[in-house]
Amino acid sequence: MRDGHAYLNRSAQHLADKMIEQAGRLGINHSRGHLGEHVIDAGASCPGGVEAGLRIVEICMGGLGVVSATLDTGKWPYSVNVRSSQPVLACLASQYAGWNLSHEKYFAMGSGPARSLARVEPLFDEISYREPEAKSSVIVLETTTPPPAAIVEKVSKATGFAPENLTFIYAPTQSLTGAVQIVGRVLEVAMHKAHDLKFPLGDIVDGAGRAPIPAPHPDFLKAMGRTNDAIIYGGTVQLFVRGTSEAARTLAEQLPSHTSRDHGQPFADIFKKFKGDFYAIDPHLFSPAEVIVTAIETGDTFRSGGIHEAMLKQSLD
Amino acid sequence: MRDGHAYLNRSAQHLADKMIEQAGRLGINHSRGHLGEHVIDAGASCPGGVEAGLRIVEICMGGLGVVSATLDTGKWPYSVNVRSSQPVLACLASQYAGWNLSHEKYFAMGSGPARSLARVEPLFDEISYREPEAKSSVIVLETTTPPPAAIVEKVSKATGFAPENLTFIYAPTQSLTGAVQIVGRVLEVAMHKAHDLKFPLGDIVDGAGRAPIPAPHPDFLKAMGRTNDAIIYGGTVQLFVRGTSEAARTLAEQLPSHTSRDHGQPFADIFKKFKGDFYAIDPHLFSPAEVIVTAIETGDTFRSGGIHEAMLKQSLD
Amino acid sequence: MRDGHAYLNRSAQHLADKMIEQAGRLGINHSRGHLGEHVIDAGASCPGGVEAGLRIVEICMGGLGVVSATLDTGKWPYSVNVRSSQPVLACLASQYAGWNLSHEKYFAMGSGPARSLARVEPLFDEISYREPEAKSSVIVLETTTPPPAAIVEKVSKATGFAPENLTFIYAPTQSLTGAVQIVGRVLEVAMHKAHDLKFPLGDIVDGAGRAPIPAPHPDFLKAMGRTNDAIIYGGTVQLFVRGTSEAARTLAEQLPSHTSRDHGQPFADIFKKFKGDFYAIDPHLFSPAEVIVTAIETGDTFRSGGIHEAMLKQSLD
Repeated sequence: MRDGHAYLNRSAQHLADKMIEQAGRLGINHSRGHLGEHVIDAGASCPGGVEAGLRIVEICMGGLGVVSATLDTGKWPYSVNVRSSQPVLACLASQYAGWNLSHEKYFAMGSGPARSLARVEPLFDEISYREPEAKSSVIVLETTTPPPAAIVEKVSKATGFAPENLTFIYAPTQSLTGAVQIVGRVLEVAMHKAHDLKFPLGDIVDGAGRAPIPAPHPDFLKAMGRTNDAIIYGGTVQLFVRGTSEAARTLAEQLPSHTSRDHGQPFADIFKKFKGDFYAIDPHLFSPAEVIVTAIETGDTFRSGGIHEAMLKQSLD
Repeated sequence: MRDGHAYLNRSAQHLADKMIEQAGRLGINHSRGHLGEHVIDAGASCPGGVEAGLRIVEICMGGLGVVSATLDTGKWPYSVNVRSSQPVLACLASQYAGWNLSHEKYFAMGSGPARSLARVEPLFDEISYREPEAKSSVIVLETTTPPPAAIVEKVSKATGFAPENLTFIYAPTQSLTGAVQIVGRVLEVAMHKAHDLKFPLGDIVDGAGRAPIPAPHPDFLKAMGRTNDAIIYGGTVQLFVRGTSEAARTLAEQLPSHTSRDHGQPFADIFKKFKGDFYAIDPHLFSPAEVIVTAIETGDTFRSGGIHEAMLKQSLD
Repeated sequence: MRDGHAYLNRSAQHLADKMIEQAGRLGINHSRGHLGEHVIDAGASCPGGVEAGLRIVEICMGGLGVVSATLDTGKWPYSVNVRSSQPVLACLASQYAGWNLSHEKYFAMGSGPARSLARVEPLFDEISYREPEAKSSVIVLETTTPPPAAIVEKVSKATGFAPENLTFIYAPTQSLTGAVQIVGRVLEVAMHKAHDLKFPLGDIVDGAGRAPIPAPHPDFLKAMGRTNDAIIYGGTVQLFVRGTSEAARTLAEQLPSHTSRDHGQPFADIFKKFKGDFYAIDPHLFSPAEVIVTAIETGDTFRSGGIHEAMLKQSLD
């Protein structure tokens, strides 16, 4: 292996293989799809759970994140903690659900390290990561059904891997696995919004995030609302950045969700207000409630936003 | 190995072997008993400690729990955190100290995955877990001395394993190992009381717990009192359950220790009041102070109980 | 291997090898020095980060500590947690930066398990630890440059190992790696002060500590000030000790930083006051803000000191 390389895909594959080996204890189901692809149902027709959700977060981050869940204090004490000393690779080159893998009525946004091989998203114009050593890869989908053959073929073509070298992991938004897997994106949404705000990605050197695990809800809209609210109204992120104090201060001020015009209502209500048009929602809403930015080259730390207890109460309970 | 199987005994054996290998750093002592059984003294004639206690919790949970100890904030900041996405197997099929391994003056309740092979307790009428692949097993005892030959023979007979394939781990209630090992049962006591309350075990799909680590006490009664109080007055548990909101609400209301007629005094005083007759104490006292139950099929969360600072102050200090 | 042995050097070497293997994801650089020694730059000419810092803490503790970083709540939520059931070996025989490895203008105090082989410090008169099995070792330096040849030779001579069997890890005080690595000493400074206070080392059987991760600062003095203040005004430690309640009470009362005559100002100011003469500063200042001592043989717990928010605000922000 090349010394100094991060190996998102290899690491994720290793973690996915371990999930398959421990399918029983994780409450998940492994099978082979029509084209020979590996399919892990992590919460649709099987129980899944918190541990399955955390494993998926690790896979989504290409093995470059440290992920845990502990019961702390407060009204929503059960929280996910994620951190990465490679937040651009872990969160943007891998975890961000940015690869459109929809087909006909099947709607899915692909997450995970396969994105870094396919490189079909504009985001990769700014991420030079390559992994020629990768021989297989993993794709994570927030769906209730496995991907149709057309999508398996699409991923196969884009990555150059035969279907048998691809592992698709899926779990519904409504499942406990899904709830954990989604709030495990608390750092990722901050990274993505920082990019939207034109903050230079190369200047973000380290990061950590925390968000409560919301109760899953059988209704898709409510489940989606809660997972978003757990981050938007309950998430905290700290970023360590290079560059000036002014840049760090601006990032801290602009990054929290409260800067969004749509902030202040449960996400499900906002979604309904925009008649289910996800892309009509202000993208700047998707960010943690509370942000700390530390400028490592000047020593200054800036804070903005805060946990919104009232909104959490309205949404999570 | 059968795909999807949990392997309580194999996992526990693997963890016990690692304890033996790291005996020095764990402050424990490994020897062979008269019948060839492996014996780990984890805190009687050796120091043991927090790490040894945590390892025992992992073994007790058959490798299906994630266990940690961190120094948090508050008056008793050092806390144990446990979680499992297989709480029935981890806590009831394995961790619960339900196997009577007393002999003459030797009093011991066996804990650990060997229970799931012996299946001598009525509880196993409701737990279908089998592990024909197991070739060895581990038993944990909260005692000051290793088991007598009669007990080793009893376990050997009940599990079908020769003594050399059995590992007995013991630590006194009064030891630091013991204190950690016992409060690591915070989730287990909630599971056991849920079962007593006739909540369907199959409906409990995930769980987490937290309790402060009490100071060990040289007096057995006080040591036992503190470990119980740490859970009864200082423990928090969150369960994720299937079924109706009504069932979840009822469970949340009935599960905390405050529902017990014996709640409100340090455990050692209650024990004395009943003249040391453990079984005269209301079994419903043995449960966490604070309970959160989330009904994953309806999305509702119910809370009941709370940390009892005054009682902790009276007992733990 | 000798059963029951702790193997500080072997464990640290294993962890250092893993750092080298994962250099890319850790943001560190591995090279070979002029004499063939392994050199890891963990934050001078490379980014390093929180994960690199935590790995160094693990190495410094000879593999006998459990180290984590989580985003908790409060103004400085990102915290390091360390614990050890072998605090004398982990913190004093290994982690303490007590080996003078300065040469001409190069100032460095060596930390890590190599100290336990060199045994040149008076502290080792009270620590009987030996590890004849060790075939290589690791030295950690809080510096901006790698050690000069004279220092590599000095370590080689003192340990009896050829330079190619030595790994030198260095990171500046001003780096994020450095900040994490230093506050990871929160338990160690407590152990060291306990020793200064003549508390019998053999009576300290377990311990845990916690401290906030301060923002790195480009100015050496401010960086050093903040890392010290994070412990002195923001650190908490719990020790479990043998012996009388009286001894435990005295230790708890004397151990926190507030007992020092120099307590009450940011460390950088104190340092300036003494015109940069580190050794003019009251050594008893170097200790956590808040201390809990539990006497395991009597069951009593004693607390002293407390987090000093005002001083943290003045120093860390």
